[in-house]
Amino acid sequence: MSKNIKKIGVMTSGGDSPGMNAAIRAVVRACAYHKITCLGIYRGYQGLIEGDFEEMNARSVHHIINKGGTILKSARSQDFRTQEGRAKAYENIKKANIDALVLIGGDGTFTGGMVFNEEYNFPVIGIPGTIDNDIFGTKFTLGYDTALNTVVDAIDKIRDTASSHNRLFFVEVMGRDAGHIALNAGVGSGAEEILIPEENLGLARLLESLERSRKSGKSSSIVVVAEGDKTGKNVFELAEYVEKNLPYYDIRVSVLGHMQRGGSPSCYDRVLASRMGVKAVESLLEGKTNYMVGIQDDKMILTPLDQAVKGKSEIDKELLKVSDIMSI
Amino acid sequence: MSKNIKKIGVMTSGGDSPGMNAAIRAVVRACAYHKITCLGIYRGYQGLIEGDFEEMNARSVHHIINKGGTILKSARSQDFRTQEGRAKAYENIKKANIDALVLIGGDGTFTGGMVFNEEYNFPVIGIPGTIDNDIFGTKFTLGYDTALNTVVDAIDKIRDTASSHNRLFFVEVMGRDAGHIALNAGVGSGAEEILIPEENLGLARLLESLERSRKSGKSSSIVVVAEGDKTGKNVFELAEYVEKNLPYYDIRVSVLGHMQRGGSPSCYDRVLASRMGVKAVESLLEGKTNYMVGIQDDKMILTPLDQAVKGKSEIDKELLKVSDIMSI
Amino acid sequence: MSKNIKKIGVMTSGGDSPGMNAAIRAVVRACAYHKITCLGIYRGYQGLIEGDFEEMNARSVHHIINKGGTILKSARSQDFRTQEGRAKAYENIKKANIDALVLIGGDGTFTGGMVFNEEYNFPVIGIPGTIDNDIFGTKFTLGYDTALNTVVDAIDKIRDTASSHNRLFFVEVMGRDAGHIALNAGVGSGAEEILIPEENLGLARLLESLERSRKSGKSSSIVVVAEGDKTGKNVFELAEYVEKNLPYYDIRVSVLGHMQRGGSPSCYDRVLASRMGVKAVESLLEGKTNYMVGIQDDKMILTPLDQAVKGKSEIDKELLKVSDIMSI
Amino acid sequence: MSKNIKKIGVMTSGGDSPGMNAAIRAVVRACAYHKITCLGIYRGYQGLIEGDFEEMNARSVHHIINKGGTILKSARSQDFRTQEGRAKAYENIKKANIDALVLIGGDGTFTGGMVFNEEYNFPVIGIPGTIDNDIFGTKFTLGYDTALNTVVDAIDKIRDTASSHNRLFFVEVMGRDAGHIALNAGVGSGAEEILIPEENLGLARLLESLERSRKSGKSSSIVVVAEGDKTGKNVFELAEYVEKNLPYYDIRVSVLGHMQRGGSPSCYDRVLASRMGVKAVESLLEGKTNYMVGIQDDKMILTPLDQAVKGKSEIDKELLKVSDIMSI
Repeated sequence: MSKNIKKIGVMTSGGDSPGMNAAIRAVVRACAYHKITCLGIYRGYQGLIEGDFEEMNARSVHHIINKGGTILKSARSQDFRTQEGRAKAYENIKKANIDALVLIGGDGTFTGGMVFNEEYNFPVIGIPGTIDNDIFGTKFTLGYDTALNTVVDAIDKIRDTASSHNRLFFVEVMGRDAGHIALNAGVGSGAEEILIPEENLGLARLLESLERSRKSGKSSSIVVVAEGDKTGKNVFELAEYVEKNLPYYDIRVSVLGHMQRGGSPSCYDRVLASRMGVKAVESLLEGKTNYMVGIQDDKMILTPLDQAVKGKSEIDKELLKVSDIMSI
Repeated sequence: MSKNIKKIGVMTSGGDSPGMNAAIRAVVRACAYHKITCLGIYRGYQGLIEGDFEEMNARSVHHIINKGGTILKSARSQDFRTQEGRAKAYENIKKANIDALVLIGGDGTFTGGMVFNEEYNFPVIGIPGTIDNDIFGTKFTLGYDTALNTVVDAIDKIRDTASSHNRLFFVEVMGRDAGHIALNAGVGSGAEEILIPEENLGLARLLESLERSRKSGKSSSIVVVAEGDKTGKNVFELAEYVEKNLPYYDIRVSVLGHMQRGGSPSCYDRVLASRMGVKAVESLLEGKTNYMVGIQDDKMILTPLDQAVKGKSEIDKELLKVSDIMSI
Repeated sequence: MSKNIKKIGVMTSGGDSPGMNAAIRAVVRACAYHKITCLGIYRGYQGLIEGDFEEMNARSVHHIINKGGTILKSARSQDFRTQEGRAKAYENIKKANIDALVLIGGDGTFTGGMVFNEEYNFPVIGIPGTIDNDIFGTKFTLGYDTALNTVVDAIDKIRDTASSHNRLFFVEVMGRDAGHIALNAGVGSGAEEILIPEENLGLARLLESLERSRKSGKSSSIVVVAEGDKTGKNVFELAEYVEKNLPYYDIRVSVLGHMQRGGSPSCYDRVLASRMGVKAVESLLEGKTNYMVGIQDDKMILTPLDQAVKGKSEIDKELLKVSDIMSI
Repeated sequence: MSKNIKKIGVMTSGGDSPGMNAAIRAVVRACAYHKITCLGIYRGYQGLIEGDFEEMNARSVHHIINKGGTILKSARSQDFRTQEGRAKAYENIKKANIDALVLIGGDGTFTGGMVFNEEYNFPVIGIPGTIDNDIFGTKFTLGYDTALNTVVDAIDKIRDTASSHNRLFFVEVMGRDAGHIALNAGVGSGAEEILIPEENLGLARLLESLERSRKSGKSSSIVVVAEGDKTGKNVFELAEYVEKNLPYYDIRVSVLGHMQRGGSPSCYDRVLASRMGVKAVESLLEGKTNYMVGIQDDKMILTPLDQAVKGKSEIDKELLKVSDIMSI
């Protein structure tokens, strides 16, 4: 075990996701277990620059494992993109005797960490916290499983009213660059069609598919659309286009929005967060740095941060086919 | 008991709401209990015109008490607005030997029933099924309580992410003419401000209130806006206006949309539906017609349909004051 | 407004129930609104005796409206049953300059308050917080609506497995003295039979009813049993008795237990708590004492504490009949 | 593709689990997609013996992906354990021209399938459906993820009341032979101690751990106990033993029971079921038999049925350690 690490700072940064609190709890308790000090850093890199720290012990984090959001707050820091900002941050870190950082967040968070590590040779470990599941080096990111349940729960409700009225619904879900949420929640909610940025179905084939769906005797249809899908300009124009071309459809649009980021984390996300928090602290204590903790084949793994940032979390082709078969 | 009523038809019409299935079940079972026949009419008045009927017994409605939507489907019928349409409906009713109708729906549904009753002197009883709670003659409509829980659950999730980022959220909820959902779900979710059609707060006072809220040290704010609120042109322009005038706020908009209409009904709505279904059938058997079943002081009451349609379900002034006090 | 009341203490006592936190929040904010001080008293009467107080302002209670349990903790105090205990409590009250108390709890809590009021002529107002809904003077107690939803949600799950296996389930729910939960959740979950303390169905009629239910073609049966029901010695012996007499039934027992007391409060309970908290504070400010706040016909009312304690919250006979009709 | 397979039978057998309906749907739709006929077999092997079949098409399974239980019902068949029973089953299969079977269930189901395959050289493929996650050859069984969420949701509610009263709760969860649910839901709900059949903690160390927990300042404690744990004779005697030895604890017991088997499946279980159903049908079409479909590293795999039955699904040692660290 590394003798040099006596105090670890932990922060959440970027968009929040369910399970971040569980990860904070795990980092804090793993520190307590290994008898080192843990400092909570508020509002991500911005709090690092402003020295907004608070010492945390095992009791500080009780009853947060099941809470959405992050007790450490999150922010996107413009200042940290400047050398002056990072210098200020390093100064605060030295003053507070912090020996290493655990960074909970996404791509942007990790990029910040890498730059900081490079400039100051300062030990950092990342934990992937984002509902989008778009991080290379881990099969699942924190909050993704919870978001999927939130989305299918919402679409189940929409299905009730859709099938009572024989309607066609376009439901937009999060995922600016990745279709993981749309594809999985689409299959999970029995969507008739799923539109994701990774595959451009094209408007012609969408109409065709909806025609076929109607002829097969379906009483209602749900089309799940990822935020970043390129089939239409946006979900509203997409709906308008379909309405014009398939006039027998009574069409509605629903944008699920920010509720997808919140809520009490699922059991899976709580356990994953606990495992990742422990792994992050123990990796730092073993002298590792510049890695992201991930899960692969249900085991904790480490991926260099630069690979995590550069790599792409591919969509599951087999699931695309399953989706096709299911919407027959 | 009226000897004339041997067969009752039941339908759902207009927008669907959670609890409609529980009400159908109650009507069917109350018929079975009183040894009369029950016919399910599909797609509201449209099914009446098309003769889309199905006999239902106690077993036909098992396992639907907890399902959202309506197994009888719903529709808005243009044809029923014409004399020809209603004549066709009456013909089908006579052919099927239906002696009376139970109409589950809202204002439009009841208006249709009144006209039909007037023209053909045909016995009808209404059950108020709408999430908006905007029907005179009942303290609660079917689906309202469920919708409130759906809304507070969604806003709880939004609050997670709002308070992690110190954000201001505008959340639009259903209620084109009535602020019941907005007011109650707003108080229930601890909203900082609630905008409803019944009260025009005005843009100036909204800004003032948000300023005060920020100064009081609140880390995040939720403004609940009823669909029919007139403070801004719509929730997006409202948000834009505030963003322009209070630039330190990071503002987001969320339109909850159709998920509010779906979902498994709450216990309250299931019990209310069961009581209303029984009351509707027994009222018909007692020879009553042209009434709506309602609940007042936790007791079943009857209100003449024309009063139900003309009257207004007032917003609770005391609750407006409670809301003010709570957002201090 | 009473000039004498400048500081109000608030406590939760007895069994906890969802909505207690929302009520604490409402009391604290109503005090802030009326510019008087509010002290939180920990662990009910025990905390009063031990002087375990903490000043609370509007911000102290943020983000608790949706949390189950009580941030002030609860306890049953043996010491407060003694004159010495109450004398010690009064001493602490004087020392802390508390002018009046808001007591959130059930019968036991109110009895304690009445004795204290009698001995020291000290202003107290009660808020009924218990899931059992067994308090006279209010149509609904805090937590009751939430508990109903928790129970029907659990029974919905049990129904899934019951009907997959054609099983008979006995489900015990809370309610030692009152059948409100059993009756309403029973109707809400479509139970075939409901056993409550207020009505002794008798073993013979239970067997008869279950026989009839089986013959009517039902694929599964749920019997909801209130804790305090007297049909059998307890739910396990009841199940055994039925198994012996109706051997073709595959019987299971489920005791829902303490999860019924927890969980995020429903919208109804949150709004009710907010209204009751405001009413309690404003009643004290108007010089009222020794009352319990209640809801009747959706309006806030006051009932003298001794009536609240002595009276009985009757079961709804009409609902019993609805239950019979529904289980046809 | 195997030309011999033109008709596939699908059944659910043994204890039901959430996701079984989604798997039935997937099998039926995969058959439709590959243009072969699908027969639903009711009540597992018993229905096979009684010839209780029904042809299913893509529309027969709409709106069941989100329903708990199994529309094909389940049963444990004594008759199928006899040669006569299996002979009768084979006769029915021949009469109905069924070419292969998809068996959704657990160990017992697969053993039955293996014997049948051996005796009649009849193609079978298994899908692991059980909440216990105790099947070798798959990382996750259908229903396990949903059950975990049900359990943590229930324990979250119990935690509310536990921490309001500073109580110690023993919560028994399902798992007669395996501690997967207890361990994962225990970590997920922040349990102070987790007792599983795979590890005998011993009464002495349990007392020790609870003492330590109390001294560390915890206000409440949850001990999650797997049904099959051997530390005490059962959870009630365990609680009694602790109460006798640690008298300052106010102890309660809660047995979660059958609600763990029900409920709407999580998104994960719905997607897993969809993938497994497709894989099962396509494996049969490729001429494979006597395999179980499983998931490993998020990919579909096949395991010979005899290995699936004989093998053991090991508990995750790393997670045991995480659990220790988290309960510091």
